[in-house]
Amino acid sequence: MPTTSPHDPKARELFDEMTRWPIFDPHSHIDPARPAARNFDEVLGYHYYTELAHSAGMPSEFVAPSLDPETRVRNLAGYLDRIDNTVQYSWLLEIAKTFHDFPHDRITPQNIGELYDRAERSTSSSGAAWDHEVWKKSQLEAVFLTNEFDDPLEGWDPQKYVPCLRTDDLVLKLHEPTTVDRLRRATNVDVQDYATLRQAIGVLFERFVKRGARACAISLPPDFAPYRATAKRAVTPVRRALHQMDQRPDEHDEVRQVVFWTLAEFCAEFRLPFDLMIGPIRNVYPAGVAGGRDLFDRRVSLHGYRELFNHFSGVTFPVSTLSPDAGGELVAYSWIFPNVVPMGHWWYSNIPAYIAADLRARLQAVPKVKQVGYYSDAYKLEFVLPKFNMFRRVLAETLADDAVRGQGWSIDRALELARLILLENPKRIFGRAGALS
Amino acid sequence: MPTTSPHDPKARELFDEMTRWPIFDPHSHIDPARPAARNFDEVLGYHYYTELAHSAGMPSEFVAPSLDPETRVRNLAGYLDRIDNTVQYSWLLEIAKTFHDFPHDRITPQNIGELYDRAERSTSSSGAAWDHEVWKKSQLEAVFLTNEFDDPLEGWDPQKYVPCLRTDDLVLKLHEPTTVDRLRRATNVDVQDYATLRQAIGVLFERFVKRGARACAISLPPDFAPYRATAKRAVTPVRRALHQMDQRPDEHDEVRQVVFWTLAEFCAEFRLPFDLMIGPIRNVYPAGVAGGRDLFDRRVSLHGYRELFNHFSGVTFPVSTLSPDAGGELVAYSWIFPNVVPMGHWWYSNIPAYIAADLRARLQAVPKVKQVGYYSDAYKLEFVLPKFNMFRRVLAETLADDAVRGQGWSIDRALELARLILLENPKRIFGRAGALS
Amino acid sequence: MPTTSPHDPKARELFDEMTRWPIFDPHSHIDPARPAARNFDEVLGYHYYTELAHSAGMPSEFVAPSLDPETRVRNLAGYLDRIDNTVQYSWLLEIAKTFHDFPHDRITPQNIGELYDRAERSTSSSGAAWDHEVWKKSQLEAVFLTNEFDDPLEGWDPQKYVPCLRTDDLVLKLHEPTTVDRLRRATNVDVQDYATLRQAIGVLFERFVKRGARACAISLPPDFAPYRATAKRAVTPVRRALHQMDQRPDEHDEVRQVVFWTLAEFCAEFRLPFDLMIGPIRNVYPAGVAGGRDLFDRRVSLHGYRELFNHFSGVTFPVSTLSPDAGGELVAYSWIFPNVVPMGHWWYSNIPAYIAADLRARLQAVPKVKQVGYYSDAYKLEFVLPKFNMFRRVLAETLADDAVRGQGWSIDRALELARLILLENPKRIFGRAGALS
Repeated sequence: MPTTSPHDPKARELFDEMTRWPIFDPHSHIDPARPAARNFDEVLGYHYYTELAHSAGMPSEFVAPSLDPETRVRNLAGYLDRIDNTVQYSWLLEIAKTFHDFPHDRITPQNIGELYDRAERSTSSSGAAWDHEVWKKSQLEAVFLTNEFDDPLEGWDPQKYVPCLRTDDLVLKLHEPTTVDRLRRATNVDVQDYATLRQAIGVLFERFVKRGARACAISLPPDFAPYRATAKRAVTPVRRALHQMDQRPDEHDEVRQVVFWTLAEFCAEFRLPFDLMIGPIRNVYPAGVAGGRDLFDRRVSLHGYRELFNHFSGVTFPVSTLSPDAGGELVAYSWIFPNVVPMGHWWYSNIPAYIAADLRARLQAVPKVKQVGYYSDAYKLEFVLPKFNMFRRVLAETLADDAVRGQGWSIDRALELARLILLENPKRIFGRAGALS
Repeated sequence: MPTTSPHDPKARELFDEMTRWPIFDPHSHIDPARPAARNFDEVLGYHYYTELAHSAGMPSEFVAPSLDPETRVRNLAGYLDRIDNTVQYSWLLEIAKTFHDFPHDRITPQNIGELYDRAERSTSSSGAAWDHEVWKKSQLEAVFLTNEFDDPLEGWDPQKYVPCLRTDDLVLKLHEPTTVDRLRRATNVDVQDYATLRQAIGVLFERFVKRGARACAISLPPDFAPYRATAKRAVTPVRRALHQMDQRPDEHDEVRQVVFWTLAEFCAEFRLPFDLMIGPIRNVYPAGVAGGRDLFDRRVSLHGYRELFNHFSGVTFPVSTLSPDAGGELVAYSWIFPNVVPMGHWWYSNIPAYIAADLRARLQAVPKVKQVGYYSDAYKLEFVLPKFNMFRRVLAETLADDAVRGQGWSIDRALELARLILLENPKRIFGRAGALS
Repeated sequence: MPTTSPHDPKARELFDEMTRWPIFDPHSHIDPARPAARNFDEVLGYHYYTELAHSAGMPSEFVAPSLDPETRVRNLAGYLDRIDNTVQYSWLLEIAKTFHDFPHDRITPQNIGELYDRAERSTSSSGAAWDHEVWKKSQLEAVFLTNEFDDPLEGWDPQKYVPCLRTDDLVLKLHEPTTVDRLRRATNVDVQDYATLRQAIGVLFERFVKRGARACAISLPPDFAPYRATAKRAVTPVRRALHQMDQRPDEHDEVRQVVFWTLAEFCAEFRLPFDLMIGPIRNVYPAGVAGGRDLFDRRVSLHGYRELFNHFSGVTFPVSTLSPDAGGELVAYSWIFPNVVPMGHWWYSNIPAYIAADLRARLQAVPKVKQVGYYSDAYKLEFVLPKFNMFRRVLAETLADDAVRGQGWSIDRALELARLILLENPKRIFGRAGALS
């Protein structure tokens, strides 16, 4: 069995049952046209491996896009022994064993060729079959996408690959010419000012919802604190941004604010949850590998979001925070605000040590119906299963300790709670049934 | 046995012994005229249940003050299954079982009527008897009150219900007309300026100490950083505040500062510990239920209190911090400053996950004679026992792990330490014997 | 056996093996002329004991430098029962038992005389023999010093006592006349402006490296955020500082910045790792005992160091953070930046509760080749062993839980990882072989 079951018998019993459940994954970066990896480079190219290997001494050129896939894989394999302590490495090994019958316990320069061959699915027919196989083996029920606003949203089953409107570019990069161009083309609205911008955003929401979208999402830097922007005040800054004229920092912020607030208004109108992913600062380490350049400033507070949470009481905000020390605040805000929902464990906080601490507190203090247990954030289908298994293991251990042994709960009652946060809550919260009623 | 004993045998042994001890509770909001609940609405009306149920989807009108108690209880009972994972729910069940012989394992709309009937004590004779019964069953020795400054402090035994001067209104709301009026009436001093304000505060301290007060207490927002205020500089702002004239923000802060500093001076003079409860921001979620609207900004540091701790070396400051991630700083400041004492585990930090982390660090790095283990913060006597039991359980588990198994301590030595932080320290620190000598 | 082995059998097996290894200690404050304590006052005079005893009620005069050593020891012994819960006390007891055959389980006013006599090594011959004995019993291989920039660096074997250039005074106190005087005398450079200051610093680096230095080190306050200083902009502020002329705060910061940046440039040139110890604020509690006056403000972020880490990609920065809640950020920055290395567990974060949390996360998310497990920070050789044993115990417990039971690793594989972070990594990283290649 590739996934290591928990050692503790009660936890193992809980975990083993959970592994029989389907997976409902409410946030990923899967490309529905090529959901599973066509070769092992698409697995090993996940930024966790390239950035950890680079951090451990691998020059970033070793995984340059200009190289052929097998060379990149061989280059990176030479550094895997330096990161074989990490939880990310354990996902890799689980993928190799679960999906590729890899017989070894470590991935080395000696056996990487064998693994590469096993994972080769480059013809289009083998690719489609492979997508299906990974989907089935993972018992996937649905996986949410992260679609750019100008995604045509066609060519897949939106019940399985659920669209989600990603809005980072609209809020943070409206002043870039490509953004406006893309927006005009995607909506056929001649965006020239706030009024037409708003009209275009309305077109996007309508299209996304019609195609089955179940969430709007955005990642926001730690210095962003939303306030009630008024179209009137923003009218000039927005026009200047749309025409790429110079902006003062306060004007730039005004634009971010009014676009963000407008998005929240449409979420209210269309009854879409608005996923807030709070914390990243982009390009802190510009010389890093692709996807491995962003970090954060831990001095951030949800207090900066109070006006938003109060104003949009009808919008559900599933919140992920990035800094590992911010978890306690998210527990408190979810405990008080009906529309704030703690969602999964994200990126730098997505390792068992931090998951365990955050999860334990959420289970003790946040209403159980409000917890969205986990999402994979994966780029390729293969990662959904090992990441969910990591979370299921921590969940099983926490429930065995705190609920079964700690409070005398039956195994069944503990499993009921697990099923709620893994399956029923995300389905209900992202089911467009709106808030709890 | 309603309280779940720890599963681990060593922890169970420690816990079982602790449950035989009396409880000395150095901070609560008990009303000594009606200390125990007269009906189950007074239990379920605790803000933890109304705010968690509201957060889980219950409209706040369902627990409106205008409704009759039984209706409120029935309304809330419909939402209890959504929060039955929380530690707060476990207190509720322990109350039902310990004090009302409730035979079921969950409180449901079906059995809430039975529980309501069992908890009915609305005649005045049954009420007084009930106060006595809860007191005895909880083995209470003393419980501290939180008295408004104009509380007449009469009608109860101050050895059992120990007065404590709450000073929030004086510091934070001096500019409100009711505050000055109350102060004038309570002291018979014609408060018109700083000199008469100081005189009035002196009258309050004298009266409180005469009636057996053992602490002064205040809760302070995260942006408050006390500095040595001078009466001279504050003279005009204070007069303007006392006469409800408009104030600039800096003048308002000047008033807060000088009143706070004056209180600390009287604490020094009267040898009263000054409880600092650092962190809450009031009314962050104005649409919430009563008592469920306050949150915090986690960006707060005890470094802002350095001038206070240095200047008033003769005043003991029992400190509670609100944000779960602030616990490490409190350990460090208590480890260095003789007059800083870590006190209990407060509100959003008062759940086993955070208690366990904070307690473990305090036991490893803060002198044992300085630790005030726990206080209930309760509004009704029934909550003192389950909350203390929650803490005792975490304490027992921590001592079993770290002291008994971890360092080979005997059970007796571990119990000595437990007794010190649960009973002896709070009695000595709040015993008006002053600081450690 | 004085050190308490872990209770868990797997952890015990790991720990017992680790106790057979040599110790390579990459940061201490040992005086190579008197490395081990000449009497028990030099043990009990460690600031942890004086500050904890003072915090627990001991007047600071009880350990005044003017008193004779035995009196200080007897005075402090009267307060040890108040801090016998702390991990620092456990180091003390381990020293007494390991090095002085102390037969009792607690150090009391009754037996302190016996311990004092046992630890007496005041003749110069007994001192040297004692240094040797402690070194051997601790299985020390090398211990890094923290040398002031004007240390003559003579009189000891630099393979055993490895020099390290401490630069706090140059960066933070350049404006003090003694600093410039010391610098002129130490370098024979007539320091008058930035050019001659730079020349002098070059002389220091050359001398230190020639004498075997393996690191440059500095401790920095939380408000320090390095940016690329230019000599041109700093030329006037530096001249004013060197001549003790009045400086505006921004000029003072300019001086700190340019000196710090210059040091980093020399670290690059001489291929020295630059230890950053981030967080302390000096003299927060001025009435405290010597060494027990510093604290921190927890609002600090590594984001402030991004420009430094990016610019000096060729310099390895072993980073220690002071605030216990800052550990998560260090994990993330070490995971991304190749030249950022998490180093040990420092001061207020150096207790098992915080070590366990930080270590677990580092082992899960930082490449194993980048982790510097531990350093003693000791002032006397006796403390190296008990401090390392504390860390080894936490490491053994973490590996038993997470690696052996959690992931099915063999004992040998777990020990390989332990050896890497305890011995191989620090030797390589501080081996002047430069960064990972």
